[in-house]
Amino acid sequence: MIFRTKLAEWLAKPLVTNFVIAVILVNAVTLGLETSQPAMEMAGPLILAIDRICLSIFVIEIVLKLIAHGRHFFRSAWNLFDFVIVGIALVPNAQGMSVLRALRILRVLRVISVAPRLRRVVEGFITALPGMGSVFLLMAIIFYIGSVMATKLFGASFPEWFGTLGRSAYSLFQIMTLESWSMGIVRPVMDVYPYAWAFFVPFILVTTFAVVNLLVGLVVNSMQDAHQEESNEKTDAYRDEVLTRLRAIEDRMNARDKV
Amino acid sequence: MIFRTKLAEWLAKPLVTNFVIAVILVNAVTLGLETSQPAMEMAGPLILAIDRICLSIFVIEIVLKLIAHGRHFFRSAWNLFDFVIVGIALVPNAQGMSVLRALRILRVLRVISVAPRLRRVVEGFITALPGMGSVFLLMAIIFYIGSVMATKLFGASFPEWFGTLGRSAYSLFQIMTLESWSMGIVRPVMDVYPYAWAFFVPFILVTTFAVVNLLVGLVVNSMQDAHQEESNEKTDAYRDEVLTRLRAIEDRMNARDKV
Amino acid sequence: MIFRTKLAEWLAKPLVTNFVIAVILVNAVTLGLETSQPAMEMAGPLILAIDRICLSIFVIEIVLKLIAHGRHFFRSAWNLFDFVIVGIALVPNAQGMSVLRALRILRVLRVISVAPRLRRVVEGFITALPGMGSVFLLMAIIFYIGSVMATKLFGASFPEWFGTLGRSAYSLFQIMTLESWSMGIVRPVMDVYPYAWAFFVPFILVTTFAVVNLLVGLVVNSMQDAHQEESNEKTDAYRDEVLTRLRAIEDRMNARDKV
Amino acid sequence: MIFRTKLAEWLAKPLVTNFVIAVILVNAVTLGLETSQPAMEMAGPLILAIDRICLSIFVIEIVLKLIAHGRHFFRSAWNLFDFVIVGIALVPNAQGMSVLRALRILRVLRVISVAPRLRRVVEGFITALPGMGSVFLLMAIIFYIGSVMATKLFGASFPEWFGTLGRSAYSLFQIMTLESWSMGIVRPVMDVYPYAWAFFVPFILVTTFAVVNLLVGLVVNSMQDAHQEESNEKTDAYRDEVLTRLRAIEDRMNARDKV
Repeated sequence: MIFRTKLAEWLAKPLVTNFVIAVILVNAVTLGLETSQPAMEMAGPLILAIDRICLSIFVIEIVLKLIAHGRHFFRSAWNLFDFVIVGIALVPNAQGMSVLRALRILRVLRVISVAPRLRRVVEGFITALPGMGSVFLLMAIIFYIGSVMATKLFGASFPEWFGTLGRSAYSLFQIMTLESWSMGIVRPVMDVYPYAWAFFVPFILVTTFAVVNLLVGLVVNSMQDAHQEESNEKTDAYRDEVLTRLRAIEDRMNARDKV
Repeated sequence: MIFRTKLAEWLAKPLVTNFVIAVILVNAVTLGLETSQPAMEMAGPLILAIDRICLSIFVIEIVLKLIAHGRHFFRSAWNLFDFVIVGIALVPNAQGMSVLRALRILRVLRVISVAPRLRRVVEGFITALPGMGSVFLLMAIIFYIGSVMATKLFGASFPEWFGTLGRSAYSLFQIMTLESWSMGIVRPVMDVYPYAWAFFVPFILVTTFAVVNLLVGLVVNSMQDAHQEESNEKTDAYRDEVLTRLRAIEDRMNARDKV
Repeated sequence: MIFRTKLAEWLAKPLVTNFVIAVILVNAVTLGLETSQPAMEMAGPLILAIDRICLSIFVIEIVLKLIAHGRHFFRSAWNLFDFVIVGIALVPNAQGMSVLRALRILRVLRVISVAPRLRRVVEGFITALPGMGSVFLLMAIIFYIGSVMATKLFGASFPEWFGTLGRSAYSLFQIMTLESWSMGIVRPVMDVYPYAWAFFVPFILVTTFAVVNLLVGLVVNSMQDAHQEESNEKTDAYRDEVLTRLRAIEDRMNARDKV
Repeated sequence: MIFRTKLAEWLAKPLVTNFVIAVILVNAVTLGLETSQPAMEMAGPLILAIDRICLSIFVIEIVLKLIAHGRHFFRSAWNLFDFVIVGIALVPNAQGMSVLRALRILRVLRVISVAPRLRRVVEGFITALPGMGSVFLLMAIIFYIGSVMATKLFGASFPEWFGTLGRSAYSLFQIMTLESWSMGIVRPVMDVYPYAWAFFVPFILVTTFAVVNLLVGLVVNSMQDAHQEESNEKTDAYRDEVLTRLRAIEDRMNARDKV
């Protein structure tokens, strides 16, 4: 028990944390160099060796954390995140699984879970998400309805853009980002269905308005948080003092009246 | 009379509401599957049968609501919305009316009127609209003026983009969203009319500035609402207490002076 | 003198104002119909006649206003605006001056100067401008520097985009709006000058950052205005009352002590 | 010593500052005229002569400042900025160094360091940067990871867009700005790798969400600054007065009780 507590303390030391950050950065560089053909020709075996050493250090770190924290380890979302990311690298590379090889670079994301400042930024992002849940759900409904309608209306004539629900959803996402929506998609569609704008223009207005409201909601929420935190503490202290002083004056007057 | 009240209560029960939401979701899936050819070949009749059952349930629900609420039914915009959306599905499908078939998916929007959280989000969107009325009117005026000018100036040389008022309005909407405005529209126009930028660049500046002001207005409004709601209640209570206490002290002093 | 005051009062009556708005709207419709060939073939002379009647009414209105207000007329920017817009229509149409004919539609903008709600929106826009003066000046400097650099660096190879200062400014404006900046402009330029991104990417970052700061400034300004207006009046009243009451209590205590 | 103080005072006089601004503006015009071939043919030697005179004035100004302030000169970032910008012009033009010639226009930026209003705007921009440090770092990490993944996944088939880390980073920057992301890049990539959207769509969502959060952070920060500055001074004065008056009343009561 004492051993595990000491191990946990040792793992939380700045020296150990900084060493892990350094290893992550070295690994980031080697993973970047792997994409460069001249670098691989010059120092391929060395780069791969460093990559393996880095991976071994990550595995050892996680095993030590598992020993130190036991089943509490998985209570932290960040630990789970580290565990999955390092685990990906250990999956045996079947041939053709180049995607798994590419995913190894995700290890660099570990720097977020180790560096407290970055961690706070990401946690700030994530805490902003639930407040936007309803709007996201609404967007999903609008996209589903839009996809079904676009597939039924334009699928036959434009199979590449609206042939299936998936393709329609992708095309509508592109249209929502306003990328080539008119010259690329809607004008060609209007050559076949002249009233297609009556579907696409309202779709653009509704989805961009929803996105704008998401934004506004975000600004208002984080503003209120900032406002409350900073000003209310001071204000509350002032108000408490005013009220207690006023009450004291009244009490004293009461006391004197009784005399 | 009692029967109608009981019926209205029964229809508002969570069990009934959740059942309707479930039917809407099942119907959303079947309407989605209808767009997939393999699914239709495998289980076409089943999918269509489920679709009919869902529609029947919606019709029964609306008839029951009509019985329960009588002419009060149409006072709620949401009821009217449900009524129109279900009504669309009952219009006999003349041939070629594929648009009506596509509109059936709008039934999924009923989930908004049934689920209170989504309903509140949409109501929030709609209450934000009147405050933007003046800016919308201004935008409409700018678009009308822009369309007439573009049609007169460039309509003869570029009939596809600016041939009629409608085409000009559509092209100007595209330009306002900044989609291919230069490479797609203005540069080709400038090959014929070298000073065309003197029309389009101010148009872009004015319309995007108006859109930005719409946004700013939205942020400021919802901020003030949030600010007032939260902080003013507490502040008002504090201020009332301070003033009543001060008045009490003065009154007591007056009373003592008289003695 | 009395006649002029009465005339000014009569011109400000809602009945007269609404009549002028109605004439503007009728004229907007006729100017719109002039762009439609079938409408002109059917009822061309009638449309042109209505247009002339509308113009006559505008001229009479302005003459009456000039009589009523004398040289004070030109003190209002809105009057000057009306005067110029109506004046454009009276310039004799030299042949080839189709631009002047197209500018006649600007008369519809008069509805802004007549309708108070729209007037307030536009005045709100204009009062927001001076606060953005410094940022605008900065943008102008950045654009000038960018245009000179782009012309010197890329003008020889890409005369159509960067041949002169004017063309460079237009292309940079397009790049700032992010329209086809990469696929349309920068990638082709990079085929000739591989390091062109070192000019364009910082330009995009700086200009969009400046635009964002403009936006932020606008939000913050109009927020503060709204905040001050609404809450400070009430707060000031409350604070004044608290301080006068406290002073009264102290004065009374002083008076009593002297006794 | 007295001579240096007097020189520094003389250099800070509005007359001298305005003269320098005038020289900068004249130089801006001549540098602009240099890009115009007809102007150079007409008055080339004159333009170049004026340019040399302006440069000489700048050099003299900086030398005088160096004499006046000594080694304190380099303590101000703006002085350093002026020094580098004027220094660029003095580098001997080796042939082919057309970039250095183009950089001479950066001298116009000196107007920012001389005009106090512009200086404050730029300083405002720069003070906003540190608060965005964490988000910038996060963006850099995301871009690095994205570039490595894109290079590994799509580099072989699309060498022009994703052949090296640099090209991938540029292409991802283009995709983040939403420029031709779908029609130009992702759709062609999806013809070869049908699941490419699973990389690009989340990349767009994450990076635009991060940019939005940067914006929100900027708004909230400058809002709080504005809020604190303006309202707190007045509020603090009011609160101090209320509390001192209340304390005075209590003290007097205490004094009386003792009597």
